[in-house]
Amino acid sequence: MERSSSISRSDQENVPPSSTQESSNHNSKTRIIVNGVREENVESIERLFESKEVPSWKNQLTLRAFVVSFVLGIMFTFIVMKLNLTTGISPSLNVSAGLLGFFFVRSWTKFVEKSGLLRQPFTRQENTVIQTCVVATSGIAFSGGFGSYMFGMSEVIARQSTSAKESWNIKDPALGWMIGFLFIVSFLGLFSVVPLRKIMIIKFRLIYPSGTATAHLINSFHTPQGARLAKKQVRALGKFFSFSFLWGFFQWFFTAGDDCGFVNFPTLGLKAYENKFYFDFSATYVGVGMICPYLVNISLLVGAILSWGIMWPLIWDKRGSWYPAEEPQGSLHGLQGYRVFIGIAMILGDGLYNFFKVLGHTFIGLYRQVQQSKLDADLPVDGHPPAHPSSFYDDQRRTELFLKDQIPSWFAVAGYLTIGIVSIITAPHIFEQLEWYHILVLYVLAPTLAFCNAYGSGLTDWSLASTYGKLAIFTIGAWAGATHGGVLAGLAACGVMMNIVSTASDLMQDFKTGYMTLASPRSMFISQIIGTAMGCVISPCVFWLFYKAFGDLGVPGSEYPAPYALIFRNMAILGVEGFSALPKNCLTLCYVFFAAAIVINVVRDALGEDIKKFIPIPMAMAIPFYIGAYFTIDMCLGSLILFIWRTINKEKADAFGPAVASGLICGDGIWTLPSSILALAGVKPPICMKFLSRKTNSKVDTFLLG
Amino acid sequence: MERSSSISRSDQENVPPSSTQESSNHNSKTRIIVNGVREENVESIERLFESKEVPSWKNQLTLRAFVVSFVLGIMFTFIVMKLNLTTGISPSLNVSAGLLGFFFVRSWTKFVEKSGLLRQPFTRQENTVIQTCVVATSGIAFSGGFGSYMFGMSEVIARQSTSAKESWNIKDPALGWMIGFLFIVSFLGLFSVVPLRKIMIIKFRLIYPSGTATAHLINSFHTPQGARLAKKQVRALGKFFSFSFLWGFFQWFFTAGDDCGFVNFPTLGLKAYENKFYFDFSATYVGVGMICPYLVNISLLVGAILSWGIMWPLIWDKRGSWYPAEEPQGSLHGLQGYRVFIGIAMILGDGLYNFFKVLGHTFIGLYRQVQQSKLDADLPVDGHPPAHPSSFYDDQRRTELFLKDQIPSWFAVAGYLTIGIVSIITAPHIFEQLEWYHILVLYVLAPTLAFCNAYGSGLTDWSLASTYGKLAIFTIGAWAGATHGGVLAGLAACGVMMNIVSTASDLMQDFKTGYMTLASPRSMFISQIIGTAMGCVISPCVFWLFYKAFGDLGVPGSEYPAPYALIFRNMAILGVEGFSALPKNCLTLCYVFFAAAIVINVVRDALGEDIKKFIPIPMAMAIPFYIGAYFTIDMCLGSLILFIWRTINKEKADAFGPAVASGLICGDGIWTLPSSILALAGVKPPICMKFLSRKTNSKVDTFLLG
Repeated sequence: MERSSSISRSDQENVPPSSTQESSNHNSKTRIIVNGVREENVESIERLFESKEVPSWKNQLTLRAFVVSFVLGIMFTFIVMKLNLTTGISPSLNVSAGLLGFFFVRSWTKFVEKSGLLRQPFTRQENTVIQTCVVATSGIAFSGGFGSYMFGMSEVIARQSTSAKESWNIKDPALGWMIGFLFIVSFLGLFSVVPLRKIMIIKFRLIYPSGTATAHLINSFHTPQGARLAKKQVRALGKFFSFSFLWGFFQWFFTAGDDCGFVNFPTLGLKAYENKFYFDFSATYVGVGMICPYLVNISLLVGAILSWGIMWPLIWDKRGSWYPAEEPQGSLHGLQGYRVFIGIAMILGDGLYNFFKVLGHTFIGLYRQVQQSKLDADLPVDGHPPAHPSSFYDDQRRTELFLKDQIPSWFAVAGYLTIGIVSIITAPHIFEQLEWYHILVLYVLAPTLAFCNAYGSGLTDWSLASTYGKLAIFTIGAWAGATHGGVLAGLAACGVMMNIVSTASDLMQDFKTGYMTLASPRSMFISQIIGTAMGCVISPCVFWLFYKAFGDLGVPGSEYPAPYALIFRNMAILGVEGFSALPKNCLTLCYVFFAAAIVINVVRDALGEDIKKFIPIPMAMAIPFYIGAYFTIDMCLGSLILFIWRTINKEKADAFGPAVASGLICGDGIWTLPSSILALAGVKPPICMKFLSRKTNSKVDTFLLG
Repeated sequence: MERSSSISRSDQENVPPSSTQESSNHNSKTRIIVNGVREENVESIERLFESKEVPSWKNQLTLRAFVVSFVLGIMFTFIVMKLNLTTGISPSLNVSAGLLGFFFVRSWTKFVEKSGLLRQPFTRQENTVIQTCVVATSGIAFSGGFGSYMFGMSEVIARQSTSAKESWNIKDPALGWMIGFLFIVSFLGLFSVVPLRKIMIIKFRLIYPSGTATAHLINSFHTPQGARLAKKQVRALGKFFSFSFLWGFFQWFFTAGDDCGFVNFPTLGLKAYENKFYFDFSATYVGVGMICPYLVNISLLVGAILSWGIMWPLIWDKRGSWYPAEEPQGSLHGLQGYRVFIGIAMILGDGLYNFFKVLGHTFIGLYRQVQQSKLDADLPVDGHPPAHPSSFYDDQRRTELFLKDQIPSWFAVAGYLTIGIVSIITAPHIFEQLEWYHILVLYVLAPTLAFCNAYGSGLTDWSLASTYGKLAIFTIGAWAGATHGGVLAGLAACGVMMNIVSTASDLMQDFKTGYMTLASPRSMFISQIIGTAMGCVISPCVFWLFYKAFGDLGVPGSEYPAPYALIFRNMAILGVEGFSALPKNCLTLCYVFFAAAIVINVVRDALGEDIKKFIPIPMAMAIPFYIGAYFTIDMCLGSLILFIWRTINKEKADAFGPAVASGLICGDGIWTLPSSILALAGVKPPICMKFLSRKTNSKVDTFLLG
């Protein structure tokens, strides 16, 4: 679930794939170093597009764009949902969304063109609208908390916890309340930051690395040369999409039982398999590994070796002394407790450090901006040196179009107030444990936090949504108290907070993309609204499909363990009840790892960039603590493939790596749709590929003969 | 075991890989259409080599050449043995032998050159010596009959037969007698054809397609451009060698039980698996499929579908009526009988047709040659138009060097007589069932048959060794009679005949290669003698390793079923005892398939080349009848890979396809060495990858829990 922290953060360490993509795609010589606020060989992009007319904002919002967005939105929701429910890692899917959106509409227009009925050519503004809408739709799959707070309320997860198993601390998923809840909390973020767009984009000139990279990608697609490359990339994506889909299909036949199939292949031997070290043949995570920076993959591997390779076997040896030996597997009073709480400690330590770091950056940045604007009063563009150099013509043209279509501030304020009042009244009906004044407090604080997050992610590309969410868990949870269903209140508050803060930074990223592709802020805003609305319906439905199709959703060791659901619930319990139920020495270890996470971060920031890239990221290290090492093996394999590919042919690897990775992720992700339909229809796989030790095997052979 | 028939024959249908190899390798513009006796764009090869001195024949035989030959000989013996014992298909390994020989000696000389101690540069003559020696060594693995007549004498195979299970019809393998037997029969062929070399090579100008292709390959290696390509090919070979070896190693871990591992992967479903249709992940057969012409692979698949897809299930439905239903699996009185005897009928039909066809060609060719030489008396080179056009300078120079070093005829005759007398005296001591006069008759006939075979393979590249062997089985078997151990006598006679006839044609192929690379006939002969001697020791030892390491050698359905051992034994029984023991309707079906094989061949030869390539080869169709369809799936996959590769990049596929295929075959083949050592040392694989139906799996799960 640590999308913001584990993946986007790593953009700080390494040039993110989308920008690598961009740097090989771009055709005017602009080259941007994502976090260095520096552009080289500046040449005007907008001059290239000078001959092309920019459609009015209404014409940017075409029906076909939303049809394509709807289709892609469903696809990406499946993928994000699958990732949420397996490991909680979500890579950036912007490149795939941009690429596939381009491909679909381009094919559409080509087709319609031939029939002579084309009324409107495909523009980069329309492409931006699709990309915005798709990201907004699939964003809800993340911020909706189906793998974290929302599912953490369910009985399946509650049963695994040590306490808070009372009925008032449980709320099982149901389509109705989930959709309702999402609708009342997901739009507030949008309204809260709309008035700030001019300050952030034009006055502060914030960089928004992801948004900028996406804009470069879209711009490059719409030049003839870029379109050719894009076509090749789409072909590569399609090839690996098919492969990955068929591979998923093939694997399905061999999963007739619980321990069957390729996902349980003891690739590195049975001993390693017992400690969750094996390659599980997941095309998704090989693809994710190709997209994530090397450092993230290495950090995951280090974390996996530290936990499943060293610590858990050692603690297992202490069974009977540190914790009751007869404790069933998966009980938080046993080994599982160490796994979960040490993981939480490390995540919190890292989160807290970075929270203060980004907040510091935010305030220092703000202070400087205010100082600056005092100096040069109201000279919006010319007059003061731009924060990062860019073609003067580009700036002028973009600013002109960005300021053309206004969204009145009164509209934003009115919208915020209306939705706020509606949700203060309705939310307590959904969660009886949540009082109206809890929500009121959240809504008063929200705009500030939304601004902080939008500003912070503009500087660092790092959305702190889940950290703000955790903050809400602890504060509201403690406020409500254990006897009043504080656990559920905390989780619900987390949802409110995460949705506001996350959509706010998403929108601002999109405004930046729109600014650079001359898409109107109005069309961006409306596209985001429509995308969010689609997400509020699609995401719960997709989750519902998973929930109904796979009976063991959320069970540890199953195909979909939803690791963060338990982690979020336990955070809520910790917040409400304290550390009473932890097994022996667990608290000490938690302190150690909490401190270690902070120390590692301090060391990382103190050292130079050269050494920094060899020091693992604590947040990434913590992910395998609870889940196991298998997906890190997949991801490291993806990394290795990319590394070898880049060694052989760097240019080709940079141009096609993200497309191949997207293909692998999307194909496997989409296979979950037919596979869940098969499960719902009661069609079961015919064969079990089983792995037995030699001893067990001879026993089984005797049994089968006898 | 049908090396000659299934693989070399197919050269008639399609340009064999070695010549494809050549056509991309060649540097002087000579292009040879292997069976069309036609060369285009003739340009002198020998002019290119004019500046290079040809070493004396003694200097062509270096120690390093025989060290390299010994190492490669062991490697190729492993590969041929593995192929013998799994399906009996042996592809041409000349390309690999040439390539690897070149690579080893080149590395050696490079290394020694640096140390400044190089006394003799690496020449193409030395390369030819290595190639000759390696092919002679590994040839014994084929003609030694470890997968056919020799192993067919053993008790394991006898137990599967219907009759002739008496002790005098059984002789179990033992190192001593096998080596002795090979030594007394393997050299006769060499001496019998030595005096004919001038007639065959210079006077008749026979084409010897394999020999010619190998010569082109070796010539091309020794030009600078060819050496560069060869280096790249070696790298490709090395890469796939490692992959294939490691893949074999990886697979090993999962084969703890009988039905375990990738070789039992029901890739196409359990139903198909029961009928032996599955991809068994064998790198060897994927490689073999890449080397064999498309038509051979298609024929195999057609045969597999006809037998395992249609006929056997239909006959299975007749159980209880056509044959006793309670007959155990693998009994020749049951379904297995139909499989074996229908297969034999088809092989005999095809063999007989082609025997008469090639014999016809031989006599017609001979007649024409005699007529011709009557016309133009003793003009050896100039004067009469050469049988196939070639550079005049090349011919002159080659002939000159070919005639320089003589092997006196009295030496050949003396050698033949000496070895003949020794073996007439000793062989009856090895096989008591074989009388001295049986051997005498064979030895009187042998030179004629050896000449026929050498001449026939010079024309068509098709060695009929195993057909002559079958002839010996029937004649000598019937002569000895059932009560006097006719089965064993027949099999032993088959061995005598096959060895003589097969080495004779091998030697003549090598003389042709030597002629074209200016290697001396003396060095060729000595290299062949040394290679044969090495083979006589290496092959039985390697077989012995397999025999001791894998306890179930020759058992149907096991890893090494040695299919032709049972087929050869049953032929001997048929010859001695007639058709008494066949199950109901089996004989009728045998007649039908015997006739069908002949008819298909007649149709193939009657139709033009265009249509011919779409009609399957009966011999290839018969191979899966007994063994199953799994290896045909592997081979068709190899074909498919090559087909796609050639569609994408024909030039590259032609240049590197054979290297990739050789790498796959060699790596997997060499893995059998450590795997048999592990088996001998009692190290057993730790894991069983098992495939169970859903029903069985749930039973097993209950059993394992309870």
